[in-house]
Amino acid sequence: MDVITKFIKIQSKGENDIIDLTNHISGKIKESHISNGIVIVFVTGSTGALTTIEYEPGLLKDFPDMLSRIAPNNLNYEHEQMWHDGNGRSHVKASLIGPSITIPFNDENLLLGTWQQVIFIELDTRGRERNIVLQIMGN
Amino acid sequence: MDVITKFIKIQSKGENDIIDLTNHISGKIKESHISNGIVIVFVTGSTGALTTIEYEPGLLKDFPDMLSRIAPNNLNYEHEQMWHDGNGRSHVKASLIGPSITIPFNDENLLLGTWQQVIFIELDTRGRERNIVLQIMGN
Amino acid sequence: MDVITKFIKIQSKGENDIIDLTNHISGKIKESHISNGIVIVFVTGSTGALTTIEYEPGLLKDFPDMLSRIAPNNLNYEHEQMWHDGNGRSHVKASLIGPSITIPFNDENLLLGTWQQVIFIELDTRGRERNIVLQIMGN
Repeated sequence: MDVITKFIKIQSKGENDIIDLTNHISGKIKESHISNGIVIVFVTGSTGALTTIEYEPGLLKDFPDMLSRIAPNNLNYEHEQMWHDGNGRSHVKASLIGPSITIPFNDENLLLGTWQQVIFIELDTRGRERNIVLQIMGN
Repeated sequence: MDVITKFIKIQSKGENDIIDLTNHISGKIKESHISNGIVIVFVTGSTGALTTIEYEPGLLKDFPDMLSRIAPNNLNYEHEQMWHDGNGRSHVKASLIGPSITIPFNDENLLLGTWQQVIFIELDTRGRERNIVLQIMGN
Repeated sequence: MDVITKFIKIQSKGENDIIDLTNHISGKIKESHISNGIVIVFVTGSTGALTTIEYEPGLLKDFPDMLSRIAPNNLNYEHEQMWHDGNGRSHVKASLIGPSITIPFNDENLLLGTWQQVIFIELDTRGRERNIVLQIMGN
């Protein structure tokens, strides 16, 4: 059993930018020469999140729109007392979705559906460089 | 350390059908002859999701009701522009809950609470056949 | 590859108490003598949840506030028909956030961001003793 750590660097364009990581992850699994196992995808930082979605333009709007109903832009967040950087909404959305996703793979292929992509969503109020950790484990 | 892949086929009855997977998963762990480790449960597809819940009739209504407050049926979803299949709400709910859950087990027993079951929730607008992947890893 | 199970016992103070588990988890990884791998953190029970957050006083209010918008205290939950213990909201919030989080580590160090802590959130309507399971896997 091997444990191989890989990193993906991405640059988000701004709030609610959604980046498809699927091909990046597939490439890193092939580099790792592990055939069967799992990849844990993890974002370091507390204003971005990971999940899966059908990556098409409509949902790239619908998903952030839903999050804005839960954590509206125009609320007063207590987080403002700490940092005054206007991203209280970013933090609570990120904590709800979560920073991590685990995906099984066999024969070096991710066991995703055809219309199911692994995505990073930028929830901070500005574009940021992001570091995504992949922990690849298996045989 | 072994990696063993198992599949569970289920048929959902319609939107918001919640299916208890706990006994299915326990059975597959026993079949795998792995004593201590983790099982990654993953749904292929982007309109279903996995989590844990106390499996009793009230919560089987309360949980979907909460999701409908976040992603109401009567909104206009941009996803409609793509497919016209009326399931924009299904996608955004599924991305929020997530397609995967990881559960530890010891001595072939899932380390769940007594009132905590592993469930699949159908979020699509019709019943579907679903393929659940189990990646079982351990010694 | 080793699999080592550890437990953390905590006592929550009441609804929406958020407890920082990061140092507890780091300590258990060092005890395990596993250098590189993953830790699966799992709460047994269906009215508590795990995620990451920047652990500062503002967000410890903002995060529960967001959850109360999704699952208000003053709604009638069907779960009441079963138990009459007034915690229908607790269950649906816990199922949405999820009972589990997986974190990679290298050289015995969790690969978290500087402002990113692993937390347990008590969603039940009273303080409870909680059992957190750590499944530590790696080399």
